[in-house]
Amino acid sequence: MTVHAYGAHAGDQPLEPMQITRRAPGLHDIRIEIAYCGICHSDLHQVRAEWAGTRFPCVPGHEIVGRVAEVGAHVTAFAAGDLVGVGCIVGSCRHCEDCDSGLENYCDGMVGTYNFPTPDAPGWTLGGYSQQIVVDERYVLRIRHPEAQLAAVAPLLCAGITTYSPLRHWQAGPGRKVGVVGIGGLGHMGLKLAHAMGAHVVAFTTSESKRAEAHALGADDVVVSRDVDAMAAHARSFDLILNTVAAPHDLDAFLALLRRDGAMVLVGAPATPHPSPNVFNLITRRRTLAGSMVGGIPETQEMLDFCAEHGIVADIELIRADGINAAYERMLKGDVRYRFVIDNATLAA
Amino acid sequence: MTVHAYGAHAGDQPLEPMQITRRAPGLHDIRIEIAYCGICHSDLHQVRAEWAGTRFPCVPGHEIVGRVAEVGAHVTAFAAGDLVGVGCIVGSCRHCEDCDSGLENYCDGMVGTYNFPTPDAPGWTLGGYSQQIVVDERYVLRIRHPEAQLAAVAPLLCAGITTYSPLRHWQAGPGRKVGVVGIGGLGHMGLKLAHAMGAHVVAFTTSESKRAEAHALGADDVVVSRDVDAMAAHARSFDLILNTVAAPHDLDAFLALLRRDGAMVLVGAPATPHPSPNVFNLITRRRTLAGSMVGGIPETQEMLDFCAEHGIVADIELIRADGINAAYERMLKGDVRYRFVIDNATLAA
Repeated sequence: MTVHAYGAHAGDQPLEPMQITRRAPGLHDIRIEIAYCGICHSDLHQVRAEWAGTRFPCVPGHEIVGRVAEVGAHVTAFAAGDLVGVGCIVGSCRHCEDCDSGLENYCDGMVGTYNFPTPDAPGWTLGGYSQQIVVDERYVLRIRHPEAQLAAVAPLLCAGITTYSPLRHWQAGPGRKVGVVGIGGLGHMGLKLAHAMGAHVVAFTTSESKRAEAHALGADDVVVSRDVDAMAAHARSFDLILNTVAAPHDLDAFLALLRRDGAMVLVGAPATPHPSPNVFNLITRRRTLAGSMVGGIPETQEMLDFCAEHGIVADIELIRADGINAAYERMLKGDVRYRFVIDNATLAA
Repeated sequence: MTVHAYGAHAGDQPLEPMQITRRAPGLHDIRIEIAYCGICHSDLHQVRAEWAGTRFPCVPGHEIVGRVAEVGAHVTAFAAGDLVGVGCIVGSCRHCEDCDSGLENYCDGMVGTYNFPTPDAPGWTLGGYSQQIVVDERYVLRIRHPEAQLAAVAPLLCAGITTYSPLRHWQAGPGRKVGVVGIGGLGHMGLKLAHAMGAHVVAFTTSESKRAEAHALGADDVVVSRDVDAMAAHARSFDLILNTVAAPHDLDAFLALLRRDGAMVLVGAPATPHPSPNVFNLITRRRTLAGSMVGGIPETQEMLDFCAEHGIVADIELIRADGINAAYERMLKGDVRYRFVIDNATLAA
């Protein structure tokens, strides 16, 4: 089946309309009519070949929501018409310890939603900037939000789970003080989720202008990280700091805010290294610097259900497919509150 | 009371004999006749003013073992003649969460055994390179090893607890694969302890010549870390890596050996930073880079009892006090198997 998509033919070229093919659904496959797809910063890195190994043509997109159009003969959990989502993962080995633990995101054989090898043409996966996608049922999520929220649900599939998973793993909740560094696509979800989990939430931003917004998103306190005194007032007080900033920055300023046994978890990866963290900052309080990468399928479903229950969606700006390149430029300037989402109906034009 | 000691008057001067005073024991104090004191690399850093804030004269030494000479009126747990030890801690605030948790080592008010403020003359603590020391009973450890092993017990008070504490905290034990990087004063204790805890233990060394010794110390496998293929054979397999190397080095080579949710714990602090670790190495397996600093008093007692039960002591080279400066030079060259211990009886000469 041939469908309309939006992608790039080379790293130095803008995205443009293209046609791609999708496989006929196998026994366990689900064909999804994509309604909306969020734009993740990773999309830009990959399609511009800023990360190694981009295969062209490249169709990004791993924050996918839509409706089931057709199911394979052996699919019983989903039926045509169901609201569903697909995140960063469309395959994995299914038999390793990670897969057995529902942590397909850490499986060596994980197949990402775009730019990963697949038997399908053209030989690598093509993502959600397209009208349709065919995905094995194991990697399809159920969406229980009202349909009217569907566009704003899309970013949960990456930005949501990327922040939810470490918040859960490092036990954000009542009685815990949780910081969120950076108030962007990831950070604004981190604030909403940590708040809903019952933690005392502190937002760190470089921009005084985001103070009111951060409070509205769920922050109990907001600290402008350039303000040395404001930072010092929180020294040695955090159980967990979720650091969503991918740009290289001084990690020590935040490590120093952790209490004994506290953890700072990085969910963004800079293109060039952060300045090397001071080992004394780790040793003197038994602190942890860790990383976390999206989340597994069961936890993604848990996150979607948690969000549906708590009325949580992303704050989005809906765009047309022909606005993707402009959206990328605005994203690079941080000019988005807080996630662009493509209206995939506009791909048909 | 005036006692003989060995210390330095300035960072650029050798250590030399000196006389220092010790306070009369208070109600809760214990006066200890020091039999042996281990030489820790920290001693050298501090006495040579390579770390900030050294106060002179400086008498190092925080691996102290000896006999109780006198106890204060309210001391009931110890009596004259008991074999006891003193490690890195001789005071703390006693009322914070850390102290309440027996983690005096992380207390803001921790008083180190040397170079920390004290009401006693000369205004800062003086360590174990001396004939006697007076310490509050709270910070005195009981030694249950045979007296004949006393000299080799001394390094347990720092090198022992510094490795024991993270091994326990990060759950070294049966079914867990534990790496120990660096086979020196700390590392050789790490190998013995991890082995006694029942873990599968792998020693990492830059020196092929230490292979047989590492096996003898408790390593199930030995990897020469310059051997890229040997390192690759252990990729993504470790639950815990205890990194004892204080010299700046490539942390990524070891982070890559951790399995998902594995932790590398640094117990050495380099004078100049390690190359900045690659964030992808943390993110892609939810790995942890952490630090740990000695251990609290209850855990130090637990460690000493564990070692007594398992017949564990340090491998030492006993020296005279007038050999301290020469020992420092050899320590800088890594020429020690594996800890110098001062025979404090030689201070009287």
